Amino acid sequence: MNATAFAHPFLSGLFGDDEISEHLGAEADIRAMLAFEAALAHVQAEADILPQTAAHSIVATCKYFWPDMDQLKAGVATDGVVVANLVKQLRAALPSDVAGHLHYGATSQDVIDTSLMLRLKSIFPILIRRLQSLIDHLAKLNQLYGSRSLMGYTRMQAAIPITVADRIFAWQAPLERCLQRAIEMSQTGFPVQFGGAAGSLDKFGNRAADLRAALAQELDLADRKQWQSQRDVVADLSNLLSLITGSLGKFGQDIALMAEIGGEIAMSGGGASSAMAHKQNPVTAEILVTLARFNSVQVSGMHHSLVHEQERSGAAWSLEWLILPQMLLATGAALLQANKLACSITSLGRD
Amino acid sequence: MNATAFAHPFLSGLFGDDEISEHLGAEADIRAMLAFEAALAHVQAEADILPQTAAHSIVATCKYFWPDMDQLKAGVATDGVVVANLVKQLRAALPSDVAGHLHYGATSQDVIDTSLMLRLKSIFPILIRRLQSLIDHLAKLNQLYGSRSLMGYTRMQAAIPITVADRIFAWQAPLERCLQRAIEMSQTGFPVQFGGAAGSLDKFGNRAADLRAALAQELDLADRKQWQSQRDVVADLSNLLSLITGSLGKFGQDIALMAEIGGEIAMSGGGASSAMAHKQNPVTAEILVTLARFNSVQVSGMHHSLVHEQERSGAAWSLEWLILPQMLLATGAALLQANKLACSITSLGRD
Amino acid sequence: MNATAFAHPFLSGLFGDDEISEHLGAEADIRAMLAFEAALAHVQAEADILPQTAAHSIVATCKYFWPDMDQLKAGVATDGVVVANLVKQLRAALPSDVAGHLHYGATSQDVIDTSLMLRLKSIFPILIRRLQSLIDHLAKLNQLYGSRSLMGYTRMQAAIPITVADRIFAWQAPLERCLQRAIEMSQTGFPVQFGGAAGSLDKFGNRAADLRAALAQELDLADRKQWQSQRDVVADLSNLLSLITGSLGKFGQDIALMAEIGGEIAMSGGGASSAMAHKQNPVTAEILVTLARFNSVQVSGMHHSLVHEQERSGAAWSLEWLILPQMLLATGAALLQANKLACSITSLGRD
Amino acid sequence: MNATAFAHPFLSGLFGDDEISEHLGAEADIRAMLAFEAALAHVQAEADILPQTAAHSIVATCKYFWPDMDQLKAGVATDGVVVANLVKQLRAALPSDVAGHLHYGATSQDVIDTSLMLRLKSIFPILIRRLQSLIDHLAKLNQLYGSRSLMGYTRMQAAIPITVADRIFAWQAPLERCLQRAIEMSQTGFPVQFGGAAGSLDKFGNRAADLRAALAQELDLADRKQWQSQRDVVADLSNLLSLITGSLGKFGQDIALMAEIGGEIAMSGGGASSAMAHKQNPVTAEILVTLARFNSVQVSGMHHSLVHEQERSGAAWSLEWLILPQMLLATGAALLQANKLACSITSLGRD
Repeated sequence: MNATAFAHPFLSGLFGDDEISEHLGAEADIRAMLAFEAALAHVQAEADILPQTAAHSIVATCKYFWPDMDQLKAGVATDGVVVANLVKQLRAALPSDVAGHLHYGATSQDVIDTSLMLRLKSIFPILIRRLQSLIDHLAKLNQLYGSRSLMGYTRMQAAIPITVADRIFAWQAPLERCLQRAIEMSQTGFPVQFGGAAGSLDKFGNRAADLRAALAQELDLADRKQWQSQRDVVADLSNLLSLITGSLGKFGQDIALMAEIGGEIAMSGGGASSAMAHKQNPVTAEILVTLARFNSVQVSGMHHSLVHEQERSGAAWSLEWLILPQMLLATGAALLQANKLACSITSLGRD
Repeated sequence: MNATAFAHPFLSGLFGDDEISEHLGAEADIRAMLAFEAALAHVQAEADILPQTAAHSIVATCKYFWPDMDQLKAGVATDGVVVANLVKQLRAALPSDVAGHLHYGATSQDVIDTSLMLRLKSIFPILIRRLQSLIDHLAKLNQLYGSRSLMGYTRMQAAIPITVADRIFAWQAPLERCLQRAIEMSQTGFPVQFGGAAGSLDKFGNRAADLRAALAQELDLADRKQWQSQRDVVADLSNLLSLITGSLGKFGQDIALMAEIGGEIAMSGGGASSAMAHKQNPVTAEILVTLARFNSVQVSGMHHSLVHEQERSGAAWSLEWLILPQMLLATGAALLQANKLACSITSLGRD
Repeated sequence: MNATAFAHPFLSGLFGDDEISEHLGAEADIRAMLAFEAALAHVQAEADILPQTAAHSIVATCKYFWPDMDQLKAGVATDGVVVANLVKQLRAALPSDVAGHLHYGATSQDVIDTSLMLRLKSIFPILIRRLQSLIDHLAKLNQLYGSRSLMGYTRMQAAIPITVADRIFAWQAPLERCLQRAIEMSQTGFPVQFGGAAGSLDKFGNRAADLRAALAQELDLADRKQWQSQRDVVADLSNLLSLITGSLGKFGQDIALMAEIGGEIAMSGGGASSAMAHKQNPVTAEILVTLARFNSVQVSGMHHSLVHEQERSGAAWSLEWLILPQMLLATGAALLQANKLACSITSLGRD
Repeated sequence: MNATAFAHPFLSGLFGDDEISEHLGAEADIRAMLAFEAALAHVQAEADILPQTAAHSIVATCKYFWPDMDQLKAGVATDGVVVANLVKQLRAALPSDVAGHLHYGATSQDVIDTSLMLRLKSIFPILIRRLQSLIDHLAKLNQLYGSRSLMGYTRMQAAIPITVADRIFAWQAPLERCLQRAIEMSQTGFPVQFGGAAGSLDKFGNRAADLRAALAQELDLADRKQWQSQRDVVADLSNLLSLITGSLGKFGQDIALMAEIGGEIAMSGGGASSAMAHKQNPVTAEILVTLARFNSVQVSGMHHSLVHEQERSGAAWSLEWLILPQMLLATGAALLQANKLACSITSLGRD
């Protein structure tokens, strides 16, 4: 049984996002970590750092291998990271003369951070597709109702009439900027992490940079010199997630207020009340506000992780593990709910 | 597969808390919600608001009933709360002349908030026990090593020698204050929520207060006039949770620094590195810092929920669902890890 | 010119609180720090730790002394705290045979933390008075309009009619709990800080506890063993401040929504618009929401300060200096504005 | 007397930033608001919306005009914004046939948001210069000591030796990315805000876009369709500020740890202790951590402001006023201190 709304047997009806969850679960993580180990062996063999036969064996084993989860969990309990135990299990599955070649010159953080980046590369197209879809929905609403009149409200008071198009513009424009940013981030923002024990790729001398570039290419990630203790890449990512949910929160708040004041919106659906049969609660709109506030809170935690002492901070790094997956899920859920909300609108403004 | 570290197949090795999780999962929630419905029927029958036979039927059904989870999830997706669908399913399991008596005069929030309080009543003894155990461990360390010398550090610089007892005192004293507060909260801080559709118990006229008091007694909760839109009770609770983890974070930070500087602490255990066989990472100490920062971030979200508009804010209320369970799990995990850390210390200070 | 809204030439019209500002400014701080030094000399003379004549001289000098502010500022720039330079300046103003007795066995944090507590002792009666006054205003509104009908809203939808009394109760009850907590905190919550260089009062041997108790009594503060690295006392205080502003934020949000929906509230005053002459903006109500969110954000920072490493953390401690004064000012301003808002209400509900 | 550390008589020794403060104070704000009114009159005259003579009169008056501050403050207290009263005072200083042309078709938010952007345009070159200077200092340290050995620490444990260059790289690289972002933001990120009463520039029909473009050009800001209720531009800015301070916080934390562990760093300066003459506290390094945590907390508040309901949210907008100026000051102060810290380093690593 699960205490987290994002993966909860019934709360996930509102907060769940199956498509994105899949990339954030343990299985996808393990697959990505194994992909790292396989790619590492491959490029090291290409560079004559290890025998081609060893690399073949590692690559082949990484394809089918599945670790014992109880051992992994016990490993995390002791080591604070999963990689030491994963590598141990994987080595046990390899021929003894190959085992030593696995994970050569790499460290836990290389594996875990690169796994995160590989999965972000899978998640971003989903976010981008949903952003695009929502923008399209809004554009359609604009086509249908844009020229109608709507009361403009400033400081919680009726001000002057505007058009529905004016209001939709304020919903749509920040989403377009977020979409643009998400596309840019997809293109360059997901770097491989490869630094070895303390970030200096000490095992590889002057071949280090070439090896890292080859690894990045093999994994289809951006090449960047080690960033293990420079967390601006993930903090900046969390900023984008919260810009998305915050912009959707404004959309939700506006819809909830329109529903409360009445007369300028019609929606299909709407939630039932256990006490009052006549009500049609704007549940989806409220949830967008909830998720906006959630990410606004979490973005703070991601920025605290920037204070990442020395060559690796277990404390600051682990904080990301607690926060970033949920920010991604909250963003995914908000986009799902916002699309649903936009689709449910059957009229805006006054004829 | 689960993206949340607190309920993650392998990260739970570090962040998991099986004992507290059990009370925060969907099953315990459903059981507590059914207990609310049963108690409500019982006290309403005692007050001649509904027939004793109907109450018996409701109480009996609530004992064995288990809802269809897919329907519950679909209900949450539409209604934003689980109760409307749960009541609907439960009514379908009751004789038709009884069904209408179920949930009489109550609303979703009564059920959900009361369920939370029932489960907090189960969780707090666990927290209290672990706090007490940790305080005992620290007292024992004090007995063993308290009179030894330790370098006092101020502003990250060696200052003057102090005793181990001085340092342990700074760890222990805030935990004792937290323990005291947790005990007080256990005694009076878990109030029943019963307000009906809009908080006014409109169905019960001048019998409302008596009925609520009887319900509180039946559920062994404190009686308090409806607090559905007054969230200080939960915000204040979150403050205590973060005071606990923050105080443990200071303990963890101190241990991690002692381990880094060396010479004044010995510990058994310690995490392995995938890259460096010689290291003994103070994983548990670091995780205490992580969990302290996590709750320091989350406490902000719980305070935002105080801005709970009108008679019920779906937006502000749902934010609590996303945050409070995780703060409880983080607190539970921190206490588990802190006890483990305290037990692992085999020497403090200099002879 | 000042960039902070709380002390801004014109924004202070909305966010200013002259009465509380006075206790948080540099002058009150210096006076309180001098009071600490005087009291310390006095109780040390009583305990024969220093000559009575020296104590008299110190006490007399602390009364009239005023430091050179440029030197203080330069001292802070170098030392990170004001006390080293303040003591240096004060010693220069004392007879040479007395100078060495000043600040004996004390450290910067003793002076600064105790100064904070002395000033909180002055600030809390102001907060308490304003809370009481607001509760009285709400009680009066209840007397005048409590029995009238008001539409209850749940999840941003009209639900069922309630009474004005029901709504006022939800505003008033949390304020009464906050008032109770503030009174309790006033009675026991402001402890002297006295620990010496590293918290162990190393200069005083087994007389340390008596000396601290005497110092507490002389300053009319609670006696508590050193808490310099245990920041739960200040984090817990920040929680209360944010509970107050959060509860006022709910009040403000409700009023703003009533003003927007119309028909159930009348207010005198209300802000002018530079663009629309017809508007009466519910400025005060909005500002309560602003200040609630502000403190909800800041309370997080105060909880981060709990991770206060070793015997004194310059980093964690200084963070409090940046945040706590503003939380106090925000709370003061919110109470001022809430009283103003409550007074401006000329009708609630429907006849 | 001032309660805010950033503008405090003595705490400003550590947290003050005179250069940036100047642009954030009331005087610079008023000057920028007057510049907006002048530019608006000018471009409206060019577009034959008002007589050239009226524009000349407005432009001339805006140059020398200084408002009565008490009236401004009283205006803010009533209106929630300064502009209504500023315009009123300014109109009283204009010939009666000109007064009506002032502020034509504009609203408070146009003036205030544009004033913010004008001042950001002045502040960013300062931040950019300091970032560049710090990067240069680090490059110099790298030149001097880069090839020396340094113990690499991971998870608070000595790992393997790295070079000083490896460590400096981890400090410098994120600053270079921040610098790049700050330069880009300077070039395109400061848009004029011009929307009129409710964002629709209702007074100008199909000439609205041209007029806004002309106004942007006159003020040397980017042209962007109204963004008054789309706060991603300011939230994203706050993200950059916190990325800067967070990266500096890592630098500070590393230096403080090096100073504590000893043997691999030498610094000139360092703070005195009021209790211990032998100490050299790494004050500047600690303050970088403080300011990193401060901005990490504040960035959350800026993201909450994204939930900006309808055409103008007094509540969400005012929250920015409380937070953004301080984030700018914190960033400025952190850059000052970081430069000071980098300059104070006289040795790194081991020969």
